[in-house]
Amino acid sequence: MTLKVIAYARNGHTDKFGIPRQSRDESPIRTRIVFEPDYRIPEALRGIEGFSHLWLLWGFSEVQTLQTADAEGLQAEHAGLSWSPTVRPPRLGGNKRMGVFATRSPFRPNPIGMSSVRLLKVENGDLIVCGADLLDGTPIYDIKPYLSFSDSHEDAKNGFAEEQKDYRLEVQWSKVESLMSREWFENDSRMTREWVGEVTYILSQDPRPGYQDDPEREYKLDYGGFTVSFVVQGPTVIVKNIEKK
Amino acid sequence: MTLKVIAYARNGHTDKFGIPRQSRDESPIRTRIVFEPDYRIPEALRGIEGFSHLWLLWGFSEVQTLQTADAEGLQAEHAGLSWSPTVRPPRLGGNKRMGVFATRSPFRPNPIGMSSVRLLKVENGDLIVCGADLLDGTPIYDIKPYLSFSDSHEDAKNGFAEEQKDYRLEVQWSKVESLMSREWFENDSRMTREWVGEVTYILSQDPRPGYQDDPEREYKLDYGGFTVSFVVQGPTVIVKNIEKK
Repeated sequence: MTLKVIAYARNGHTDKFGIPRQSRDESPIRTRIVFEPDYRIPEALRGIEGFSHLWLLWGFSEVQTLQTADAEGLQAEHAGLSWSPTVRPPRLGGNKRMGVFATRSPFRPNPIGMSSVRLLKVENGDLIVCGADLLDGTPIYDIKPYLSFSDSHEDAKNGFAEEQKDYRLEVQWSKVESLMSREWFENDSRMTREWVGEVTYILSQDPRPGYQDDPEREYKLDYGGFTVSFVVQGPTVIVKNIEKK
Repeated sequence: MTLKVIAYARNGHTDKFGIPRQSRDESPIRTRIVFEPDYRIPEALRGIEGFSHLWLLWGFSEVQTLQTADAEGLQAEHAGLSWSPTVRPPRLGGNKRMGVFATRSPFRPNPIGMSSVRLLKVENGDLIVCGADLLDGTPIYDIKPYLSFSDSHEDAKNGFAEEQKDYRLEVQWSKVESLMSREWFENDSRMTREWVGEVTYILSQDPRPGYQDDPEREYKLDYGGFTVSFVVQGPTVIVKNIEKK
């Protein structure tokens, strides 16, 4: 089967680094689903606003896959974008290997991702959704309604991923407060309370590669037109600087 | 993107008629996921048994799509397997049109289906799962772990599909009890208590095309080597006959 791109995701995640590894209901990250001309048909969305959640089926791009390989410190076996029977999930410290079908890794025989998202609204023929763990520009192959009686298994056992469930870091902005008050709500600024909420969420999800734990190491996150520098010390993310891109 | 078939589903659903329209946790239908030689690698399943549920991404076959079109009384617009911006969901009586992206209809730009299933066990390199709404022989493109913290939205609003949630028919076997006791547990028989449980579930889900409601009309369901004849009178399915195929 050959897949046709029906839409592209548009959001502030212009760089792979920092994209939450799974979609979550609490995520404030907004994504606009922009349909391609052949699929931009108002009737094709009739009835969709009655659903609170949707499924997106999307493609891991080559760039995204290679950047992930780099960020996760993966070896040459992945450089050709071929799949591998085992992968090293970042939240297991990057040194335990699990079967690819027991993970959501992009290094799969068919690199399709799936994410459940909250539908906020239909706007000018686009869908505005919240909670997608997608890179800006991600191709979308399908959109389906979320059906709770079929798709929801509240008590499902999450195997080795169980510890991800409640994993969160605390985020401290105190070191950049003066920068923020200077930028905040300026006329041409995209740094708003919403932006801060989004970046707080992204940082709380711990964007570091799984095998790294160096409290001195400074990371840079590009999001929504700004570059945020931060370090991670124990369970705390300390934001060190914010620059316009 | 071109998808490679990694496995095929094997179960008693040798005919499209009767396949439940959505997977459900309560479904007793067992399906064996048989990997293709290139993907039949024990390590690729390492860690999978810690998960209670899995996602299957699979393909609507052409035959399945055409049979559905026929069963749903769809028009020529679908005969070429092209997608349509609107479809007529069977549970809405088959006469209201909804946007294709607000439905799980097979008549999509990319005819991929997704189903969450319970993982029963790994057996000789195959996965044995329960609850899949799949035709025997359905191609599988991906298998992923179900992550409750990402995938479960117990209170999601189901739009116009809400009424499907608790829709069940009662199933009466009394007319065929003598046939069943004759066949039941015979040496070469596939008609076991499990088979009866599976067929009871299938019939309770109402396999009729959505627009039909004729209490005299007799339907035939092929499942697991037997053909079951039944009528539907109000909220009750009455099994009229069972024959070996």
